[in-house]
Amino acid sequence: MQHLKHCQGLASIFLIRSQSSRISKSIIPSLSVWDGHLSSRWRSTGGHGRQKYFSDRLPKFRFALAGLLVGTGAVLAYRLHQGKVEWAASSAQLPVTQTSALPVYTLEEVTKHCSLDNGVWVTYKGEVYDITAFVAMHPGGDKILLAAGGSLEPYWALYAVHEQDHVFEILSEYKIGVLNTESIKKQESVNTLDPYSAEPTRHPALRINSLKPFNAEPPSSILSDNYITPSVIFFKRNHLPVPRVDPETYRLEIEGLPGGVVSLTLNELKSCFPKHTITATLQCAGNRRSEMNTVKQVKGLNWGIAAISNATWSGALLRDVLLHYGFGPEVAAKAQHVQFEGLDKDVTGTAYGASIPLNKAVSEDGDVLLAYEMNGEDLPPDHGYPVRVVVPGIVGARNVKWLGKIVVSEEESKSHWQQNDYKGFSPGTDWDTVDFKSAPAIQELPIQSAITHPAEGTSVDASDGEVTVKGYAWSGGGREVVRVDVSIDGGKTWHVAKLRTGDKGQQAPPPPPGKAWAWTLWEIDVPLPHRAQELEIVCKAVDSSYNMQPDTVAPIWNLRGVLSNAWHRVKVKVNEDL
Amino acid sequence: MQHLKHCQGLASIFLIRSQSSRISKSIIPSLSVWDGHLSSRWRSTGGHGRQKYFSDRLPKFRFALAGLLVGTGAVLAYRLHQGKVEWAASSAQLPVTQTSALPVYTLEEVTKHCSLDNGVWVTYKGEVYDITAFVAMHPGGDKILLAAGGSLEPYWALYAVHEQDHVFEILSEYKIGVLNTESIKKQESVNTLDPYSAEPTRHPALRINSLKPFNAEPPSSILSDNYITPSVIFFKRNHLPVPRVDPETYRLEIEGLPGGVVSLTLNELKSCFPKHTITATLQCAGNRRSEMNTVKQVKGLNWGIAAISNATWSGALLRDVLLHYGFGPEVAAKAQHVQFEGLDKDVTGTAYGASIPLNKAVSEDGDVLLAYEMNGEDLPPDHGYPVRVVVPGIVGARNVKWLGKIVVSEEESKSHWQQNDYKGFSPGTDWDTVDFKSAPAIQELPIQSAITHPAEGTSVDASDGEVTVKGYAWSGGGREVVRVDVSIDGGKTWHVAKLRTGDKGQQAPPPPPGKAWAWTLWEIDVPLPHRAQELEIVCKAVDSSYNMQPDTVAPIWNLRGVLSNAWHRVKVKVNEDL
Repeated sequence: MQHLKHCQGLASIFLIRSQSSRISKSIIPSLSVWDGHLSSRWRSTGGHGRQKYFSDRLPKFRFALAGLLVGTGAVLAYRLHQGKVEWAASSAQLPVTQTSALPVYTLEEVTKHCSLDNGVWVTYKGEVYDITAFVAMHPGGDKILLAAGGSLEPYWALYAVHEQDHVFEILSEYKIGVLNTESIKKQESVNTLDPYSAEPTRHPALRINSLKPFNAEPPSSILSDNYITPSVIFFKRNHLPVPRVDPETYRLEIEGLPGGVVSLTLNELKSCFPKHTITATLQCAGNRRSEMNTVKQVKGLNWGIAAISNATWSGALLRDVLLHYGFGPEVAAKAQHVQFEGLDKDVTGTAYGASIPLNKAVSEDGDVLLAYEMNGEDLPPDHGYPVRVVVPGIVGARNVKWLGKIVVSEEESKSHWQQNDYKGFSPGTDWDTVDFKSAPAIQELPIQSAITHPAEGTSVDASDGEVTVKGYAWSGGGREVVRVDVSIDGGKTWHVAKLRTGDKGQQAPPPPPGKAWAWTLWEIDVPLPHRAQELEIVCKAVDSSYNMQPDTVAPIWNLRGVLSNAWHRVKVKVNEDL
Repeated sequence: MQHLKHCQGLASIFLIRSQSSRISKSIIPSLSVWDGHLSSRWRSTGGHGRQKYFSDRLPKFRFALAGLLVGTGAVLAYRLHQGKVEWAASSAQLPVTQTSALPVYTLEEVTKHCSLDNGVWVTYKGEVYDITAFVAMHPGGDKILLAAGGSLEPYWALYAVHEQDHVFEILSEYKIGVLNTESIKKQESVNTLDPYSAEPTRHPALRINSLKPFNAEPPSSILSDNYITPSVIFFKRNHLPVPRVDPETYRLEIEGLPGGVVSLTLNELKSCFPKHTITATLQCAGNRRSEMNTVKQVKGLNWGIAAISNATWSGALLRDVLLHYGFGPEVAAKAQHVQFEGLDKDVTGTAYGASIPLNKAVSEDGDVLLAYEMNGEDLPPDHGYPVRVVVPGIVGARNVKWLGKIVVSEEESKSHWQQNDYKGFSPGTDWDTVDFKSAPAIQELPIQSAITHPAEGTSVDASDGEVTVKGYAWSGGGREVVRVDVSIDGGKTWHVAKLRTGDKGQQAPPPPPGKAWAWTLWEIDVPLPHRAQELEIVCKAVDSSYNMQPDTVAPIWNLRGVLSNAWHRVKVKVNEDL
């Protein structure tokens, strides 16, 4: 009876949802609902308020959660700091309260309910849920059906965003019974497999934006201390669990060339092709996203200014490898893209994927590497061991790690990350109006710069007479940074910073035109104005095509919070002389 | 006696100047002095105030005029509209008042005074001037010595900026005598040669920024009416008189290749190499300079938003020609630049010159043309007949017209226009602190867009319910325009415009990556806000590297007024319903 009543309730919710999603094209809500706000709201309305809550919010709720579960979006709205991540992980261990009055099912019975026609049942920690009515509401769409007739644990382990209080509360509303003891034992053997159990150890200095998958940046205060970022603090941007690859059995497959599929061992890649070394900066499309969040909440990891780092990379030139295996005018006449697939896979077996324009891949000036070394050592696991592609001048997302396959193709990668993510939109575009097909996949990134010293909210002494300002600048497409302007009065007057392209005493020679792959560090001592009490320090860089950074964040705000490259601003106090 | 007294006066001025120029590093003054302001000021101080005037202003004066006479700078500060140009031309016909009491000289006597050692005498309209003391003050530097011992007319005819009231007044102070009748007759036969006498006829719609050399843009209201700009209204940017080239005797010389100097006839260029056609937009580095003038006066022609146009160009690929004549890895190992020299020359015989990076010149993707056709016809004289180089994606200044010579070289062009002009600087850099070596020569231009409709200060009817906004967008380096955002509330909210890359019904297929050489026209109908009385219409474009335009002009202001690509803003009134 309770079950039936529950189903009716859900059915009505479902109808309301369907209507709402057709009629209302509401704006995506603040994603702060995902740090527990929704959960407390839920409590305050009480159980009887549930339908009202859903009917008011379902379309929004659906869109809000959508990005969270589809591939890279899985943890993107997640604004969890390390503490919260740990909290989520520990709360995931708490079993939902047992209700002995509910029916007992066998795993076989659950397994039969694996489709919308037969009902969608799932299990979680020994309890059985009929989530048929929830499927259409699931922000991640049909992917929820992967768990139909089985247990949720393997999927939630992959997308840790589920492991939050309010998600457990939503789930509990769909409970219809419990598993018998034998079934629970059977499941345990499978469910204890944590896809993140083999993650590498990370440096404690890293500021973690998401634990599973692991996403972290170095403290900005140390970012510009080294021209070459030490690998351990190089920002980490993983979309899925780190695959542990055996170098002996590793194979790199290449498709789309006249001779058929090529399968290369690691040793062949290292020994058959000349080893090239380049210094290249990688930057996440979401670097400085946190500044966009101050305008209006966006979907994505809350990166500070340090989702960018610089390293030396060594490996074979992709161009050499493709030419060796038959790339030529015949292929070029048809192909337009080179796709990459990682060995990191989601629960459906879908690999992380991306592509770059063919020109970039095969041009003598492209410098695209199949890299097996970072800063003179084997690639660390977090950076793609044993092989990653390094596409200098191009957004981090196309520098596919744990590279498993290369496909020379007429088409772009069909992956979520190429088609429905990592694209820029107008500030006027929201999740109700966005058409991902209307924008190109981000490749080259625009001119960027940020202040690493002094830090926001710190103080300088008036008695110093000047303030030392430091930072980094970089532009995509191999465009060299030719100037950095610094202001300490919010942009009214400007000073030209000194640039350096190496550690002290090791200034690199200027790169060939169009091959400035590495960042530029800069520094300037600016005299303090008389009796200044506060400084608004601002930097803006100019690249060799004289591209300049936009002044403010709001006009470049976009729903995914990518391409955040407005002038960087830092406010500091001036301590008066004693 | 009078002569002696005069010389003493000048000597003291000269001393003051030397001192001042060493001590004072004053800011360049408003160049409005050049539209007659200086002249009236001169009058108001009276003759006796001359020394005071010079001692106060000479360093500034020198710097202000400097850009006017050095090559392209010759007319740059000139803010003359057509009427003023005509006025200057007619005032040049007025002889200076004769003073019969002065000594009479022969041309032979004048000719002896052709150096600082022997004194520098010049003649103008039958009168003789000793300008020895003025040489050091001459804003154009030593170039004034070219006229030493002879007549000024041929030089002033080349740099029409001299033909203004206050320049005549300054000159009159140095008068020492008159020529005898025979000498005057001798000179007339030479002086009647006007280097601009053979200029082509121009379309009356053009808005003239400078008549000699000829610089003009189409009215912005008609700029975006055609995807392909008709040649007659394509903006004209000449640095020197238009050379009239005989196609039969025309030779294109090529230096720096293994086989020695190549000399190509027009017929050989046309018949020996495949003919390629591209559609490419050219933009002057100074396009939209007038907006920078509203922040603080800059040096340069006061271009509106229409120093940009789009045409089809046909010719031989520079790459094909260089490869044919022996360009290969050996040359590439040393050379880094390709220099171009025009057949347009200044009075010293120095040709207009520029260079581009070798990569751009020889890359398969560079599409650099030795163009002999524009919009399907022979190049018009104003656009470089018989051959110009078209360097798509690169600033207009490198698209050298009346091409006479190509030099494959280790070095950039040494020309004034490559070394000391067409470079960008920080807003904090002024004429006293500028170091032209510190900035790269402009090659690729940054993302640009502007509103061609409605025009500033016009009105829209509230009863229309919406406002139609039109414009153009373009980016350098072959970067495609991927989006144009339009606001009618000054940038608070944004709408995405419809883009087109052809005339109606002739949308071009998308260009290959990195080869978007032609502009994008755009249009949008934006609903009028309820009871709006005024609209601030704004546009900003985004290119395929997601470069965006800066918000405001002041932070990108630079002393030469180049690279003016802030959001374009137009204010219009809304006529209320009757």
